[in-house]
Amino acid sequence: MQQKLFFASDYMEGAHPAILERLIETNMIHSPGYGTDDFSASARNKIRHACQAPDADIYFLVGGTQANATVIDAVLRSYQGVIAAESGHISVHEAGAIEFGGHKVITLKHRDGKLSAETIEGFMHSYEQDETHEHMVMPGMVYLSQPTEFGTLYSLKELNDISRVCREKQLALYVDGARLAYALACPENDVTLPDLARICDVFYIGGTKCGALFGEAVVIPKHGYLPHFFTTIKQHGALLAKGRIAGLQFDTLFTDDLYFRVGKNAIDTAAQIRKALSENGFSVAFPSPTNQIFPVLGKEQIAILSEKAELGFWEHMDEKHTIMRIATSWATTQEDASALAALLHEHNNLRSGGKPV
Amino acid sequence: MQQKLFFASDYMEGAHPAILERLIETNMIHSPGYGTDDFSASARNKIRHACQAPDADIYFLVGGTQANATVIDAVLRSYQGVIAAESGHISVHEAGAIEFGGHKVITLKHRDGKLSAETIEGFMHSYEQDETHEHMVMPGMVYLSQPTEFGTLYSLKELNDISRVCREKQLALYVDGARLAYALACPENDVTLPDLARICDVFYIGGTKCGALFGEAVVIPKHGYLPHFFTTIKQHGALLAKGRIAGLQFDTLFTDDLYFRVGKNAIDTAAQIRKALSENGFSVAFPSPTNQIFPVLGKEQIAILSEKAELGFWEHMDEKHTIMRIATSWATTQEDASALAALLHEHNNLRSGGKPV
Amino acid sequence: MQQKLFFASDYMEGAHPAILERLIETNMIHSPGYGTDDFSASARNKIRHACQAPDADIYFLVGGTQANATVIDAVLRSYQGVIAAESGHISVHEAGAIEFGGHKVITLKHRDGKLSAETIEGFMHSYEQDETHEHMVMPGMVYLSQPTEFGTLYSLKELNDISRVCREKQLALYVDGARLAYALACPENDVTLPDLARICDVFYIGGTKCGALFGEAVVIPKHGYLPHFFTTIKQHGALLAKGRIAGLQFDTLFTDDLYFRVGKNAIDTAAQIRKALSENGFSVAFPSPTNQIFPVLGKEQIAILSEKAELGFWEHMDEKHTIMRIATSWATTQEDASALAALLHEHNNLRSGGKPV
Amino acid sequence: MQQKLFFASDYMEGAHPAILERLIETNMIHSPGYGTDDFSASARNKIRHACQAPDADIYFLVGGTQANATVIDAVLRSYQGVIAAESGHISVHEAGAIEFGGHKVITLKHRDGKLSAETIEGFMHSYEQDETHEHMVMPGMVYLSQPTEFGTLYSLKELNDISRVCREKQLALYVDGARLAYALACPENDVTLPDLARICDVFYIGGTKCGALFGEAVVIPKHGYLPHFFTTIKQHGALLAKGRIAGLQFDTLFTDDLYFRVGKNAIDTAAQIRKALSENGFSVAFPSPTNQIFPVLGKEQIAILSEKAELGFWEHMDEKHTIMRIATSWATTQEDASALAALLHEHNNLRSGGKPV
Repeated sequence: MQQKLFFASDYMEGAHPAILERLIETNMIHSPGYGTDDFSASARNKIRHACQAPDADIYFLVGGTQANATVIDAVLRSYQGVIAAESGHISVHEAGAIEFGGHKVITLKHRDGKLSAETIEGFMHSYEQDETHEHMVMPGMVYLSQPTEFGTLYSLKELNDISRVCREKQLALYVDGARLAYALACPENDVTLPDLARICDVFYIGGTKCGALFGEAVVIPKHGYLPHFFTTIKQHGALLAKGRIAGLQFDTLFTDDLYFRVGKNAIDTAAQIRKALSENGFSVAFPSPTNQIFPVLGKEQIAILSEKAELGFWEHMDEKHTIMRIATSWATTQEDASALAALLHEHNNLRSGGKPV
Repeated sequence: MQQKLFFASDYMEGAHPAILERLIETNMIHSPGYGTDDFSASARNKIRHACQAPDADIYFLVGGTQANATVIDAVLRSYQGVIAAESGHISVHEAGAIEFGGHKVITLKHRDGKLSAETIEGFMHSYEQDETHEHMVMPGMVYLSQPTEFGTLYSLKELNDISRVCREKQLALYVDGARLAYALACPENDVTLPDLARICDVFYIGGTKCGALFGEAVVIPKHGYLPHFFTTIKQHGALLAKGRIAGLQFDTLFTDDLYFRVGKNAIDTAAQIRKALSENGFSVAFPSPTNQIFPVLGKEQIAILSEKAELGFWEHMDEKHTIMRIATSWATTQEDASALAALLHEHNNLRSGGKPV
Repeated sequence: MQQKLFFASDYMEGAHPAILERLIETNMIHSPGYGTDDFSASARNKIRHACQAPDADIYFLVGGTQANATVIDAVLRSYQGVIAAESGHISVHEAGAIEFGGHKVITLKHRDGKLSAETIEGFMHSYEQDETHEHMVMPGMVYLSQPTEFGTLYSLKELNDISRVCREKQLALYVDGARLAYALACPENDVTLPDLARICDVFYIGGTKCGALFGEAVVIPKHGYLPHFFTTIKQHGALLAKGRIAGLQFDTLFTDDLYFRVGKNAIDTAAQIRKALSENGFSVAFPSPTNQIFPVLGKEQIAILSEKAELGFWEHMDEKHTIMRIATSWATTQEDASALAALLHEHNNLRSGGKPV
Repeated sequence: MQQKLFFASDYMEGAHPAILERLIETNMIHSPGYGTDDFSASARNKIRHACQAPDADIYFLVGGTQANATVIDAVLRSYQGVIAAESGHISVHEAGAIEFGGHKVITLKHRDGKLSAETIEGFMHSYEQDETHEHMVMPGMVYLSQPTEFGTLYSLKELNDISRVCREKQLALYVDGARLAYALACPENDVTLPDLARICDVFYIGGTKCGALFGEAVVIPKHGYLPHFFTTIKQHGALLAKGRIAGLQFDTLFTDDLYFRVGKNAIDTAAQIRKALSENGFSVAFPSPTNQIFPVLGKEQIAILSEKAELGFWEHMDEKHTIMRIATSWATTQEDASALAALLHEHNNLRSGGKPV
């Protein structure tokens, strides 16, 4: 019997085997706690090198919401808020973690998950022009995600434009890279780690969804930009006693380009599926070049496909159609991608009487 | 050449080998995220069984400070504070995580890290008698640690007495079990997991310091006691995407009594060292029957011992003496314990002209 | 020389003379602090009577933002947020006071400042349907203002409909009555104080903008609904030592229908100005039947009018037009209203070549 | 029949008559809101002059807890806490307002309500020496009250010493002057307003307990020290719409030395009572030279005295004795003080068989 195919998300398996091997190898070595160990030091150096940011402060946190809340609380003053897309993870899916820290998430319109320099500039202009703006939350930083929650990418030009607005308006710029590996490995992408290190005040390199058991590497390109950040991490319950476990994982991910290879696997398999969708008359809700694909499917199609493949639910579109999510990852095999492509071919949308939505 | 001995803390190595094996075995199995996987379900059942608490809600968090802050914020109403010993981890070593959530830590006097029912009752009496008490933070819960930060243990009678006061005064009772394995395996201990489940409103079973890579199992004996706790966990940045990694570890720790075996190894090796200290004329700052020992050493002694063994710093006692910490763990071998004993014999405190402090 | 006319806001003068007289009369009487005095007790009774809510808990706070933040923090559990119109005072003009307390303001679309039962129900439906809603802030209450920030009014039917949704969805209902006197005295209004007491879980009767020096009366119709609210008030820095000063003012406002007379004066003078605007070809941005009028004026018109009358700025509409605010109050004389009407006649919009916008 | 005497607190009456007169005089003058009015501007200038601090930023808030919470939140970074005496108002009687803002109150031992430079220095030394101090709340400021909650005074030398420690350790220094008038008018006092302006980073001049209806003047000697403090005030619900009401009161208090005359009346009447206590064999719990006196009385004495005079409760001392509080104020007449003195003579402690406690 054929096994079910799993494409619901990019955090359904354990970790890249290289990481597990490393954990076993080093298991009985003694090291001090809280990220002061040699593995973490080595990982930091490799990341500094990859980012061409020799003075960067780097901290390893456990998860994305935690990284976002801790960084945002550290960057903002108590009277400030953070600008984000209405679809931003911090606006929608972090259960109010930013507000828990006392800060408003100021939401702006987006396009396929992306904020534009114009939108931010326009908002800042109207804020500054408003005679009552001292009664309002003061915008203190901009939150972006790369890739976005829609799997889309900021181009280098777009980021440079946003960065210019941020500098003019004294807004810190922060990029959430929960799935950064899948941006970096994407042929459409022209934003490198050194670009991010040059453009951002803080960004994080995602591990959890990119091959690690868990872990996000927060990069602060300018040394000392966030004083006492260690204490802020502890205050947020975000300090790992066995910091080495996070450090080791990033040390492995930044050895022999593993982080980029992890990304490439997901991008290649996603391309294969994207091609199959297109060839078989299925449409997508919006174009996303990274490891997430958002096909629009009818209820019956979902029922049929779901027998053989687990897809993710994204959003009800209308009474008849639902936007689903197909996510590939470091763990997706070519075999699985081919099997899904075959399944799509078998249930060809045009042949089955449907039409491209 | 002899390797250095490591006794500075109980989180210096990776994880118990059984846990790593399990991670490898299950690595490529697909599972849903956020703790809804089968591994976590299995772990919950085993813990419910061990606690004789069939209806308990159980959540796996990453670390102790995180577990404490999340639980305390979930239990308390916004106008309430938590009672703790002056030496309690939440009072001293969590960088203000409880206050970050808006709650005062109300500190009371302790004895070797332990609060007494009398102390709590006396405080509540004076709070209630104070005509201005509505201008004060209302005490809403009691935080204890078992074993305490001093390595000491509450007896069952002591916990029952505290529990009685808590019920009378409508205080929730919460026990921090960061090192619970080392209490459970201790011959002096008479408090079992079912006792804790009966006495506490919430407690957590520590993983990080008891053989896991990371992880703490929060046990809420009465189902539904903390509504929407999942959302509170997310809000605190404490929700693991790959919840299975925590679930798997606890599933392993609660298979074949591993959690208890982990504890026993630490207790046995600690006993060996405690014996060597006593026989060689060294004194301890306070009696601690669990995996932590607090010898009082002179500066020279520290210098000499430190060449061969890494001990932890605890506190400056006076100009000449320092309280150090020796911690054993699941990872301490009998060979290491014997080597430390031999070292203590070699530098016998009496022979070297010292006297028991 | 003619004095300037003042219509920029409804908090430009001191207090209704009856309040000052009362302060003088009672000045040297001794009373206990923190709202436990006889004046406050008397005011509470009069408000209970006016609301037909004999068991209501009533507290006097100083200002609107303070009342909103204190009430919302008291009603919500830590994982909940408050639903408000995008234009709601708590969303826009309270400098993040709600987020400071840890709660998200969940903003929904409005119509002239008003939320509808359908909008709230639709939002709750999509929240409940969303498979990831446990990762989101849980909506716990609805915030409305009566009159709204746009000077508009909810009808009794509209409030009853919203109330029905709130009960079905277990959302507390809270009404901000910063300018409630101006709703109650408005001929278009069909919502009474007893209606509010029946419909709301909490509401406040505004004093600051309705004739008092300062002060808002928070009404909690169901006794004991907010346990330990006194302590929450103190925690928010919102407890007046000389609580009598607030109590006295509300005691005066609820003696001989003063609160309603204060409202009526503003409504009558606003009607006079509204008539003059209409007769002279000026248009308003949206219809508002209470004490605030929002004329659309050209830049030149603003320049000319501003020489003789101080109006409030509301919003830039387009390059040529600005929405201004004319506010009347308890302190507006018929003479001032007539003088403004004359001024509008003098600069008749049609005669001056303009046309109704 | 003789009227009862009132000495329970210093906030039992309305306001100094000069303040009420001023409110009446100016009642119908139009002014802009939120403290941008001329009355507030004038008050600021008078306070700057009195403090010899020509560049000081000055804001008028409503009450003491509000002022403390707003200032402390503005001064501290999110990872910092505030040092206070265990008896400090922010530690005990503000219902957790500081923790609500996310900050720990770090309590140190005091002597009659006073912290010493040595105590602070000792604490900072042990904090810095502690190898785990990055896991602790970082001390960011020192909170003192002048006079203290015990009615005692810091000498200029004591404040200078504390200031030196604060500068060395980069701690902001903040003085709570809720009853500052009673310090300034006290013969034992050698600390002037210019001294406070020189020594403190922020302090506040109390109005509520010193002759005003309400109000505290927050003085920030160095212009710009707290950027966007206006927004922080709004965020804390502490911004008065009719800011003029607070401004007017301070303008009056700082005209013709009213603030100092208000203080002197309280000090003179307190001296009269203190003399009567001493002459009639009553003892005090601790020496307090300002407007608060803390006699130690037996239960029967309290019962007898309470028939004719309302005293404040302070603390149960032992089974037989209670510490009571006698407070004088701007509103205490010499007649009342004489009447209380006569009452004490009538119930002479020695004659009645008692002995000085």
